[in-house]
Formats: sequence, structure tokens, C-alpha cells
Amino acid sequence: MSHQLGKVVENISIDCVIFGFDKGNLEVLLIQRAINPEKDKWALPGGFILKSEEIENAAARILKETSAIENIYMEQLSVFGNVNRYPDRRVFTIGYFALVSPEKYNLLPGIDTTEVRWFKMSDLPELAFDHKAIIETALKKLRSRVRIRPIGFELLPKKFSLPKLQTLYESILGVNLDKRNFRKKLLKMNLLIKLDEKEKGNIKRAAMLYKFDRKNYNKLVEKGFIFEL
Amino acid sequence: MSHQLGKVVENISIDCVIFGFDKGNLEVLLIQRAINPEKDKWALPGGFILKSEEIENAAARILKETSAIENIYMEQLSVFGNVNRYPDRRVFTIGYFALVSPEKYNLLPGIDTTEVRWFKMSDLPELAFDHKAIIETALKKLRSRVRIRPIGFELLPKKFSLPKLQTLYESILGVNLDKRNFRKKLLKMNLLIKLDEKEKGNIKRAAMLYKFDRKNYNKLVEKGFIFEL
Repeated sequence: MSHQLGKVVENISIDCVIFGFDKGNLEVLLIQRAINPEKDKWALPGGFILKSEEIENAAARILKETSAIENIYMEQLSVFGNVNRYPDRRVFTIGYFALVSPEKYNLLPGIDTTEVRWFKMSDLPELAFDHKAIIETALKKLRSRVRIRPIGFELLPKKFSLPKLQTLYESILGVNLDKRNFRKKLLKMNLLIKLDEKEKGNIKRAAMLYKFDRKNYNKLVEKGFIFEL
Repeated sequence: MSHQLGKVVENISIDCVIFGFDKGNLEVLLIQRAINPEKDKWALPGGFILKSEEIENAAARILKETSAIENIYMEQLSVFGNVNRYPDRRVFTIGYFALVSPEKYNLLPGIDTTEVRWFKMSDLPELAFDHKAIIETALKKLRSRVRIRPIGFELLPKKFSLPKLQTLYESILGVNLDKRNFRKKLLKMNLLIKLDEKEKGNIKRAAMLYKFDRKNYNKLVEKGFIFEL
């Protein structure tokens, strides 16, 4: 962080794993580094904590300064501190993660950043430092998370079809789910309200639309559940 | 860490929240500090990471050096780094936690430690730094953990009664559970094998003994479950 020399904690950084779900694909936000080390390589949006800054504020600031994304809830993932993860000196990094809807955000490359954009998880470029391992750890956490909490509210349009919801789960879990089984399990959870409406557009077999039952959704979030595959 | 000056990462420490379950009580391991800052206060077993030491190894070493406890599996909790959590300078600490059976370990106060012993969670002394908040965060994690994974295997004798298992859950969750409900839910999980044997000793109404069905136990751990209260 060229402009902040002396103002940062030099051995503790933050890296943000921002997952996006867009058109059936699970994506992750990456920036291209404009500075050394690892100049020109793709990396997670990251930076150093200011000496007088609380960790959570640092995470939000760093994400905003590098990508222009703000006002999202990120959760702390883990500390990554392998002795040789960073060149020259030892740097520990605190991973944060979130899952968002990419279309809601305008990206803008910021401080020390040449470019910022979404990459499909199935098509990641070579990554700087240990960022590949950090993304893998975050993906594991995300997968275990969607099995004990309903997701989708924030990621799908207000009205959606069951195939759309299934695609969301499939893209996160990285597996194909049986259509009938998925439908049966979901409907049993009383999470969805069936609408008297079908998908629009020139679709051969338009599917029925559903919306989330927010009350039951919140109840389920609170008490937890297991989504068995 | 008087003997390690210059060899440690001076702004990153590790603190271990070791919960114990003993005779119906949830306890936590504390040490009395022999050095400044916060000399003589009770605190979590903790210390600084060596410059060339991986984080996990540091956690195990520090726990062993302060308390003599070794060979337990600790999980990373979170980083605590509030600007003013430590006097003089900014120190970030990585919390680790575990749940063990205290009777299995002989305690020995080690480096920079006057005393080490178990405290009932319901009767904690005044604590150094932000260690009270760290313990509270760990307890929250432990509580959410026991609701999605079976516990007890490592904490109960091989054969145990349902009241003993209920006490374990009650002490961790900090609530009283309805006996019939608890029994019904647990038996439905196929986690336990009923033995043809009763509690021994001079007990008025000796309860039947059970053991865990290790195969089903492992299956449940793998697929997850929700233990509803």
C-alpha cells in the first residue's frame, strides 16, 4: 500500500473472498495487482490493517478501496500464516468471506489495482501468494454453511423457479442434484410459497414461480436445519 | 515471554480456550500470569508465535508450555484485535478452542505461569486483557457446534446413563432440558446402544447404561444433524 507506508501493521493483512452467483455460475471476485510483490498477478482483494483501525473496519475499507464494493456482510474465515506464504517477510492474513449477487455492484479498480472482475470458479487464473488455498478454504466453509442454513433470499430475484434455485445449490455444492428429490425436500421445508404465475419469455416449458416465505425462512435460519443431499 | 525475546512475532499471540466437562460442570482452563502485563491475573493459556513457527504448531507448543496439556485437537476460533485490547502496543491474538475431559490431563504450571487450574464456567475470576470476551465467543461456537454434531464420545466414560448425557448437554448449553423430550430425541437418532446393565454403586434408582453406536455416530458426524431443543 504505497500511500500508507508507516501507517499500517506491516505483518497483518486482510484478504476478502467474495463469492458471486450469476446466471447459474459460482464466481469469485479477483483483482489484478498493480504493485509488487506478485505484480500483474490476479489476487483476492486485500490490503494491510491500519495501526489504529479495528479489524472489521479494515476489511470493509480494503474491499471498498480495491473494488468499490461496499455495504456487504463479510464473515471472518480464518488466519493464514504459513511461514513462507509471502516473500521477503512473514505476513499473516485474515481471510473474510461473503456470498453476493454480482449484478448489484459496479466494480471499479482502486488502490494498487489494475483491474477488478468476477471469475468463474471453474476458470480461475493463476493466483498470487496462497490465495488459491484461501479460496478453497472459503468454498468449504460456504458449502458446509448452505447445508445448515437456507440461502437464496439475497441471491435470487423475488420470484424464481425451482430449477433456478436448484442451479444455485448445484453451483455452490459443485454437484448435480436429482430434480425430484430436490423438489421434494425443499417443499417439505415449508420455505417456499407457490405463486399462481409461470416464468415469462419464450420458454418451451415455463416453470412455476415461487417466492420465499420470509417468516418460515427466518425461523429456519434461527433453529438451523440440515439440507441432506 | 522473557526467554524468547527477539525470537517471537511480537504483535501476534495465541490464546487457548480449553473447555472441560467434569462431574456435571463445564469448566475452562486458566493460568495465573507470572509476568507483566497483567501479572498475577488469571488468563487463558497463551503466548507468542515464534518467527519461524507455523500457527498450529505454535498453538500446541504454547498450550503444552503453559499447562503441560498436549496431544489434543484444537480448532481455530477467530482473531481478536481490538485496538486497545493490550496495553503499550497493539497485539492481535488468534483464539483456539477445544473440549476435553479434565481427568485425563495432569496440569503443571510452565513458562511465565504461577499456577494452572480448571475453573467452573459459573465461577470465573477476573480475567486479564479481553479474555472474558474470547471465552464468551468460544462458548457460543461450542454451543452452536453441539447442535450440529454429536458430542460426548470423548467426554463420557464408555458406558453412561442418559441422565449423565443430559447433564453434559445441559452444562454446555446452559439450560435445563426436559427429561422425556431429551430421551425421545436422542433415541430417535440411533446414536446409542442400550446395554443390559445398570449404573453401579449405592444409587436409589440406578439408570440403564448406554454406549455410543460408533458407526452411526460417525455417519451422523459426517452428514450433520440438528439437535433441536
